[in-house]
This record gives sequence, structure tokens and C-alpha cells, in this order.
Amino acid sequence: MPYVTVKMLEGRTDEQKRALVEKVTAAVAETTNAPVENVVVFIEDMPKNNYAVAGKLFSDK
Amino acid sequence: MPYVTVKMLEGRTDEQKRALVEKVTAAVAETTNAPVENVVVFIEDMPKNNYAVAGKLFSDK
Amino acid sequence: MPYVTVKMLEGRTDEQKRALVEKVTAAVAETTNAPVENVVVFIEDMPKNNYAVAGKLFSDK
Amino acid sequence: MPYVTVKMLEGRTDEQKRALVEKVTAAVAETTNAPVENVVVFIEDMPKNNYAVAGKLFSDK
Amino acid sequence: MPYVTVKMLEGRTDEQKRALVEKVTAAVAETTNAPVENVVVFIEDMPKNNYAVAGKLFSDK
Amino acid sequence: MPYVTVKMLEGRTDEQKRALVEKVTAAVAETTNAPVENVVVFIEDMPKNNYAVAGKLFSDK
Repeated sequence: MPYVTVKMLEGRTDEQKRALVEKVTAAVAETTNAPVENVVVFIEDMPKNNYAVAGKLFSDK
Repeated sequence: MPYVTVKMLEGRTDEQKRALVEKVTAAVAETTNAPVENVVVFIEDMPKNNYAVAGKLFSDK
Repeated sequence: MPYVTVKMLEGRTDEQKRALVEKVTAAVAETTNAPVENVVVFIEDMPKNNYAVAGKLFSDK
Repeated sequence: MPYVTVKMLEGRTDEQKRALVEKVTAAVAETTNAPVENVVVFIEDMPKNNYAVAGKLFSDK
Repeated sequence: MPYVTVKMLEGRTDEQKRALVEKVTAAVAETTNAPVENVVVFIEDMPKNNYAVAGKLFSDK
Repeated sequence: MPYVTVKMLEGRTDEQKRALVEKVTAAVAETTNAPVENVVVFIEDMPKNNYAVAGKLFSDK
């Protein structure tokens, strides 16, 4: 604890994901006083046809 | 804001998803006074072997 | 099934919530061919100090 | 109702998932007095490169 | 890991919640081969006016 | 987009939450190339009697 879920469009590289979880974990640990080893991060990749803003699918943009 | 997540069995066409996000966005905007351009919709497709009611997987029905 | 979660700032009246679940249920049933009686809607009310865009809490806006 | 989501690393067999939803449904029904037929279980399979503890992706372990 | 979320109507006692997390943890550990100490359970209590089936709020039933 | 949810035990101050959303937003923007103004953060505060590890509620620890 804490548990962080990052929901974003699919397509990021493992390199980006590696940096993402490292930096988000550090940010959370620093500001909530939780030990780094307790911070859990889940990434959820969204296909463009499963994500819409203002009623329009991203796959249609 | 608001943010809407629709979790359903996989298999709907992009045509159905297009209509779904459009109509849900309109329904949310109309009833919560949120501007249409602020409404976000996520669709989560569930495989049948990841969904159970009354202790039975849908893939076993 | 389908299951719909609507996450929005707290403060809507029960009247608004009543209209929201009714209209969202109709929109989902119509576009996914799910029977109305199978559609489930969860509402999640967010306090302003638990919601941020561009790094700023809504309670600070 | 109740609605149970089980988020775990991908790779379990359908056999394990069958037993999981059956036993979790029984546990929830027994302890919350909800009828078995009302209990819904969602399984979310996580790829190793979408899950991190202590800032490290599981795909890097 | 695994991580279990149980979403249900508010009103259960701590006694029921104690039994719920214990039995769900045992069921998950047994069927997924995860060590008991790794299993995490979150409970989400829903107010009746934030939960609807077939377009009707539970608070209106 | 991206959308970040931070689930943690209740009790953090608004000061901590302010720093949390700012630093997490910066970490996500930096590592995913998303503009800061597109990053959304939700905080979910958990009561101790709604969170369990190894089958034990935190309120019983």
C-alpha cells in the first residue's frame, strides 16, 4: 500500500513502462511516507476503440 | 469529468461501440449538466472465462 | 451485464442520480442488445480533494 | 451483488479459474448472506510488464 | 498478489467483514497457489443511492 | 489521458495530497510524453476496516 493504477492508450514500450513505474513509485513514496517496497503499480493499456472523449472513439479520430 | 467505465463481454463490433459511447455520453451530459466534451468513456471487454455469475464461468455455460 | 461505473464529483442530487441511471441504462441496453434488467450501474462520488487534473487538486481551484 | 474483482498475473488455467470463482463465490455468499446466484466475479489477468512492486516491473525480475 | 476487490451495499458489520476477508483470502490462496500473506482484499461499501439495476436506484426500491 | 488512481489508507492531509498529485502527474507526464494538462489523478481513501492483507483487516492490527 499504496496501490496505483495507470490507465493509458496502449503502445508504450517496456522502456517507458520501466521508467513510469520507477518514477511514480518514488513520487508516491516521497509524498505519502509509504516505504518504496510497499508501493504497487498496475498499468492498464487501452485499445483506441475502447476509449472515447466527447462521445467519439479515439479509433475514429 | 464524469468518467464512465462500461465492462461487458467481449465481441461487440466497433459499430456498436461507436453508438454506445455516443449515447452514454449524451445521457451523462444531459442528466449531470457536464459538458459533452468533458465526458470520458472507457470500455472494458471481458473474455467469457474471466466472468462468472453464481459461481459458474460464462465459458462453461 | 453490462456493468457501468460513473465516477464524478460529489454533490449531485438523488433526482439527478435517478435520471442518470435510467438514461445510461437505456443507452447501454439499446446499443449493446443487453436486456434492461441486466444492466448494472455504480455511481462513485469524488470529493474535490481527491481529484486532480494537470497536477492541481479540484479543491484548490 | 456483491461484485468481486480478482486481479492477478496472467497464466492461470481455466481449471484454476473455475475453482477460483466457485470457492470465492461460496466464501462471499456465506459471510455476507448474499444468495449465491447474486454473486458476480470478474477476473483481470495482468501481463508481467504491467505490474510493479517497489518500482520494478515483474517482467524484469 | 492476487488483489481482490469486493463491492457490496454498505451496512455489513466488522464481524462480517472479518469473516469475509478471511474466507475469500483462503479461497484465493487455495485455488491460485498464491501464499496467503500475498493476498490483498479491498472492500468497497456502496450507498443504496449509488447502485442501480434495470435503471432503478436501490434507494428507490 | 493518462488516468491515475491512487488507492491508500485514509488519513493523509490535503497538504500530502497536493504534493502527491503534483509529483505523480510530473512523473507520468515525463515518462509517457503525455502533456501535464492531460494527466488526471483520482485518490481513493480506504478505511482500515475495508482493507486486508493475509486475511486480516487493518483495523484488527
